[in-house]
Amino acid sequence: MEISRRRLLENLERYAQIGKTQEIGVERIALSDEDKIARDLLKQQMLDAGLEVLVDQIGNMIGIRKGLQQVPPVAIGSHLDTVYQGGRYDGALGVLAGLEVIQSLNDQNITTEKPIALINFTNEEGVRFAPDMMGSHVFAHPNLLEEIWKSPAYDQPEDTVGGRLEAIGYKGDMVCGSLELDSFLELHIEQGPTLELEKTDIGAVEMVQGIYWTRYTIKGQANHAGTTPIRYRKDAGYAASEVMHFIGDYSRRAESKVLTTVGTISFEPNAINIVPERASFTLDLRSVNFEALKEGQIDIDKKIDSVLEAAGLSLEREEMVRFGPVQFDETMVNLIAEGAKGLNLSVKQMPSGAGHDAQMMASVCPSAMIFVPSVDGISHNVKEFTHPTDLENGANVMLNAVLSRAGLVS
Amino acid sequence: MEISRRRLLENLERYAQIGKTQEIGVERIALSDEDKIARDLLKQQMLDAGLEVLVDQIGNMIGIRKGLQQVPPVAIGSHLDTVYQGGRYDGALGVLAGLEVIQSLNDQNITTEKPIALINFTNEEGVRFAPDMMGSHVFAHPNLLEEIWKSPAYDQPEDTVGGRLEAIGYKGDMVCGSLELDSFLELHIEQGPTLELEKTDIGAVEMVQGIYWTRYTIKGQANHAGTTPIRYRKDAGYAASEVMHFIGDYSRRAESKVLTTVGTISFEPNAINIVPERASFTLDLRSVNFEALKEGQIDIDKKIDSVLEAAGLSLEREEMVRFGPVQFDETMVNLIAEGAKGLNLSVKQMPSGAGHDAQMMASVCPSAMIFVPSVDGISHNVKEFTHPTDLENGANVMLNAVLSRAGLVS
Repeated sequence: MEISRRRLLENLERYAQIGKTQEIGVERIALSDEDKIARDLLKQQMLDAGLEVLVDQIGNMIGIRKGLQQVPPVAIGSHLDTVYQGGRYDGALGVLAGLEVIQSLNDQNITTEKPIALINFTNEEGVRFAPDMMGSHVFAHPNLLEEIWKSPAYDQPEDTVGGRLEAIGYKGDMVCGSLELDSFLELHIEQGPTLELEKTDIGAVEMVQGIYWTRYTIKGQANHAGTTPIRYRKDAGYAASEVMHFIGDYSRRAESKVLTTVGTISFEPNAINIVPERASFTLDLRSVNFEALKEGQIDIDKKIDSVLEAAGLSLEREEMVRFGPVQFDETMVNLIAEGAKGLNLSVKQMPSGAGHDAQMMASVCPSAMIFVPSVDGISHNVKEFTHPTDLENGANVMLNAVLSRAGLVS
Repeated sequence: MEISRRRLLENLERYAQIGKTQEIGVERIALSDEDKIARDLLKQQMLDAGLEVLVDQIGNMIGIRKGLQQVPPVAIGSHLDTVYQGGRYDGALGVLAGLEVIQSLNDQNITTEKPIALINFTNEEGVRFAPDMMGSHVFAHPNLLEEIWKSPAYDQPEDTVGGRLEAIGYKGDMVCGSLELDSFLELHIEQGPTLELEKTDIGAVEMVQGIYWTRYTIKGQANHAGTTPIRYRKDAGYAASEVMHFIGDYSRRAESKVLTTVGTISFEPNAINIVPERASFTLDLRSVNFEALKEGQIDIDKKIDSVLEAAGLSLEREEMVRFGPVQFDETMVNLIAEGAKGLNLSVKQMPSGAGHDAQMMASVCPSAMIFVPSVDGISHNVKEFTHPTDLENGANVMLNAVLSRAGLVS
């Protein structure tokens, strides 16, 4: 039994029009008007496929296909939101391949023992509202709901998660995490170059590296760029450049076990001839090794403290995200790996470099992920691309894993 | 003969209300609505003082007080625009002390041999439209007019100098530079700490250091911060941090003869979990020594080229401003120094660290500047402050220099 390649590709193309940017890119920021359009379409497609559609209080959409037994469903899914100037597969593939799996079961009039739940999680990317993996995070930790509703948009602090959920009509009434699940399975593009470089069809993801996000704001004093001798300056921008240079070098050491990225920065007042009074930047720190992750954070914080102390500057430090590395369920990983081999696909057990909703779900139920190759490893970019055959392979591996886990009624 | 301290202070206070920010700061960006309000007030005050008011094609306002002879006027003035979150003296003092000098002459019914011209130059600061010292620059180089009309706002490129001049009603019809001048004298706060630290009343400015402004835009590739191994990255932000760190260190070397400032920066796409594709920043490079200025620019450009070559990144480089150091007229400098001594004020011949309209006027007619102390050397900042007695001293030195240069009709 196989999914319909044609239908899957057509549906991916259809969603890629919602927030389309440049040739094949997509910009569909979580809780934006484009997100609403995509959600409305998914809701209609879920209803057309005979699913019961539930929306929880953080906006996660859950479509349930009944099983023979009234037991916790086998869940599949991912997210429909993207980063700024993102691609068409990061997120959408997992949701739409999940829908395709269900449509294929419908085509064959197949009933499973356990129900199947298709989930679209809210705001996985976290580019406008922190934290990322928001929907799955709250699914796993419902006590965070009220606090996260208040989370402000980076670009427009009067916009909040709760306000935007109401504005787009997806502040549901289902209590977060109230649905018990048998297991969770997420299909995703790799977003890195490994599978392509190693000519491997499928990644059976056994863990997700840890992610720390921190925002640093250095405070100095604005002054005239032409008349203030260097010894009298409190230049927040210069201090930021020293720290950022250190951060970049830190993960470029031969022995480094971490990845560092400074993705955002701003100066105030940001004028050519004024010494910056404030410099604000973010650190994205990742590692598969929990000790290295914690040590990296300490080393970088020490460096910042020493630079600022020497320069007489002060600091605000905001811990935005602290996720340790997550191990996936061994049975689920093996199910994927064995299933792929059964389809004559090559498979590699590997860690995930990116954060994913599945890592949050791992604390709720047995979870794992299926990776398919990304051309040139490019992702979070309008050029993101995965070959149709890889998309199809991933969906077929998911179909087999779902059938195996949910049980075919004979 | 002396100016009216009370009237000068009241008038400074009045203009400080236009664009007032925080306790004593002013934000009155060139060609903004606040600039128009200040200009309208000055125009009315010029008319009330019996001046003929002219506006040239770049928006410079010129108020002429007739002399006995029909000869080129002795010009005095400065600018009414400020930086973002700026102070109340940088610019306005030179214009309003000039107005006070004329009002004082009127009070005494004094006629001078030569006419006197009070000038308010357009956009000295250049924080929204390049180049800075725009009005005096075009006064000295009228052939640049058409090009500078097209100059776009940094924050809103559809706004142009020509468009904003029309919008606020100050695109005059007087041909730029068509008014011949006897001389030009500008009173300004020092904007640095030297006069205050050395307990000196008046600076007789003998030169202005050279200023180079350059915008660098580094282009790399956006990619996922968690899945892209360091060796595959083209991280424009990391390269920028290395260059900015070098630039900051460059003027912090013991033997350095230049001042460097990186005052602005932006990343694209500026998201926490995306490797920056573009990093754009500005360099403000200054020196009293022309050779050191040119050498500094070359050294920094070489460093950028080597960083980008090693990282496989590309560069856009925009030379925004290239002003060499300017010497003022010796006779004018001596006139100020001797005049200050005649008023029992201490005086120091000194260079200016900041650029000023007077440096542009130096190529048009004999020019010089009077400095008064800045408390803590703070300027381009809402805390900018100069003591009332220093303001009064500066205006009195200006009055004496004007009378000496314009000639009292006996």
